[in-house]
Amino acid sequence: MVALAPSIRLRRTPFSEGVEAAGVTAYSVYNHMLLPAVFESPEADYHHLKRAVQVWDVSCERQVELRGPDAARLMQMLTPRDLRGMLPGQCFYVPIVDETGGMLNDPVAVKIAEDRWWISIADSDLLMWVKGVAYGYRLDVLVDEPDVSPLAVQGPKADDLVARIFGEAIRDLRFFRFGWFQFQGRDLVIARSGYSKQGGFEIYVEGGDIGMPLWNALMAAGADLDVRAGCPNLIERIEGGLLSYGNDMTRANTPHECGLGRFCNTQTAIGCIGRDALLRVAMEGPVRQIRPLAVDGPALPPVDRPFPLMAGDRKVGQVTSGAWSPDFGTNVAIGMVRMTHWEPGTDLILEAPDGPRRAVVRETFWN
Amino acid sequence: MVALAPSIRLRRTPFSEGVEAAGVTAYSVYNHMLLPAVFESPEADYHHLKRAVQVWDVSCERQVELRGPDAARLMQMLTPRDLRGMLPGQCFYVPIVDETGGMLNDPVAVKIAEDRWWISIADSDLLMWVKGVAYGYRLDVLVDEPDVSPLAVQGPKADDLVARIFGEAIRDLRFFRFGWFQFQGRDLVIARSGYSKQGGFEIYVEGGDIGMPLWNALMAAGADLDVRAGCPNLIERIEGGLLSYGNDMTRANTPHECGLGRFCNTQTAIGCIGRDALLRVAMEGPVRQIRPLAVDGPALPPVDRPFPLMAGDRKVGQVTSGAWSPDFGTNVAIGMVRMTHWEPGTDLILEAPDGPRRAVVRETFWN
Repeated sequence: MVALAPSIRLRRTPFSEGVEAAGVTAYSVYNHMLLPAVFESPEADYHHLKRAVQVWDVSCERQVELRGPDAARLMQMLTPRDLRGMLPGQCFYVPIVDETGGMLNDPVAVKIAEDRWWISIADSDLLMWVKGVAYGYRLDVLVDEPDVSPLAVQGPKADDLVARIFGEAIRDLRFFRFGWFQFQGRDLVIARSGYSKQGGFEIYVEGGDIGMPLWNALMAAGADLDVRAGCPNLIERIEGGLLSYGNDMTRANTPHECGLGRFCNTQTAIGCIGRDALLRVAMEGPVRQIRPLAVDGPALPPVDRPFPLMAGDRKVGQVTSGAWSPDFGTNVAIGMVRMTHWEPGTDLILEAPDGPRRAVVRETFWN
Repeated sequence: MVALAPSIRLRRTPFSEGVEAAGVTAYSVYNHMLLPAVFESPEADYHHLKRAVQVWDVSCERQVELRGPDAARLMQMLTPRDLRGMLPGQCFYVPIVDETGGMLNDPVAVKIAEDRWWISIADSDLLMWVKGVAYGYRLDVLVDEPDVSPLAVQGPKADDLVARIFGEAIRDLRFFRFGWFQFQGRDLVIARSGYSKQGGFEIYVEGGDIGMPLWNALMAAGADLDVRAGCPNLIERIEGGLLSYGNDMTRANTPHECGLGRFCNTQTAIGCIGRDALLRVAMEGPVRQIRPLAVDGPALPPVDRPFPLMAGDRKVGQVTSGAWSPDFGTNVAIGMVRMTHWEPGTDLILEAPDGPRRAVVRETFWN
């Protein structure tokens, strides 16, 4: 692999010192920030994640903060998901779309109060869209990126580790709910959430100065749990069907194509930008959609460009994420497939750079 | 250096095949795309750039295209530079600011026609801001990212090389002007511009399919000129005072702080977003500004975070780019310095990670 040239533009995080001391071997770049991608190896990191507990520097999940009397109105303009029933203390996964229904981001909205929201973003400068819309509509709202850097604790032993630092009450937190918990006298939002299927928490670390103290406290408290530095794991997230914005979907796709129709309440999400386009899509249905695929043969090479999915001479889709799964003994993959060929069990040919392989559309993800 | 983990999200370019064949050793990521950062070594690449001619994959300078009756109005809303005198065929360096005068990008605007513009962007998703503003103001304009990937030809022999492919007429092109030139029957915009002080061109390659044919044609035609694959060079761009968005300036800075006041015609740029704030700044003047600094001692470590500039115990600025210059025999650096200490000749202490060094504010950049 080619090296990553350092620069301020690829921002370090409050936890970079810990990440480097733990021996990160590959980075990605996400929201102009360093995102660890590999420590020991993707396979070793994967086995450990499923067995023990990891601390992840996901500072790159930057927050877009909305504050002011029009914050809730603006938030509903951004997404086709109906937010009327959402309460402070809840997190909602919200597709964000432009006026044509094209995906701009797929963040988690964190409702802190009626007039204060965080949007915990995937890899695009959503801040710019939100600021532009707020300015154009002259909304009474402040839009900014606060000094908040999420630190995830993921894995089957995540509850045990987090309870040692933040107290037993954290075990009662329900999925996609958050509460306020203290560390060194500072109140921090902690949600039961995270980009894995192994369970765990995301700690919204407000103030970079307590980043390394918290990192070190978690590492010290979890020594007997075999806690390690980790990161979102490519294999595990594909098994679990966790999509990646920029990889599996882009501005070219509607939420319905991404299988996110259940997060679109287009009839009732009044005020949503892109509502007209999405009502049309909801009526007609998408003509292509995200599907899990099992791919034959040895471990796939890195999916660094879309790999075509063929039915005979016709291109009927593409694979956008893929990796060898040790636990399932096959290549697990995510692809966008045309409706003519998206039924479970459909046999396709994947044109990988090292040659063609059989790929079979599956009903569900693995995990 | 740590490796860069490949994924589709870090987009390959129409020239990536050529870049890899030429032996790229480090990448950066810029606008969600691969940007070569080093081939042989920063020093070897630098000497070659100043001596011969290089072909640079700067596809990551993505275009934001504005098309429609309101295109010119929207373009003027984005920047405090007065665009009334700008003609088709001209390129303007334009600071782009938000409503508070904070820099969102520092692109080159390319006026193709009164109703068609390209904004050749630095590293931020400016598309999102432009789309948000256009939507909020209900402007009659289409805003999109076209399939246009700039390829730069830079170095003292750039004219000779480009003339061999596109004809002798290209030598008459003036600085920051563009013309239409043919390659394989396709009309391409070529401008006399580029992110170095060595002279050359940027070819706006429209249609990724002709990327590698053009790359190969340039390499073949320039063999006797010692043409090589290259990339923006850290040392050379600091010597020349070329700023880097995300490194030397961010959304926190006004154009005046960045020394870009000469591109702000805030009195006459009527309609510009941020005009009120910038009129105030123009009246009062900035309290900190970009300065060239010569830094003593051996080669600086990579500037991967801001290095503080101290006057005694007081922090009076920070260095955001720096490198050892073989030609000038000193570390060349770019910093933001408070007005109390920005006079040429001011002696400061740079707190580099490997210890303090003397840093002297200079009147001008080196080149």
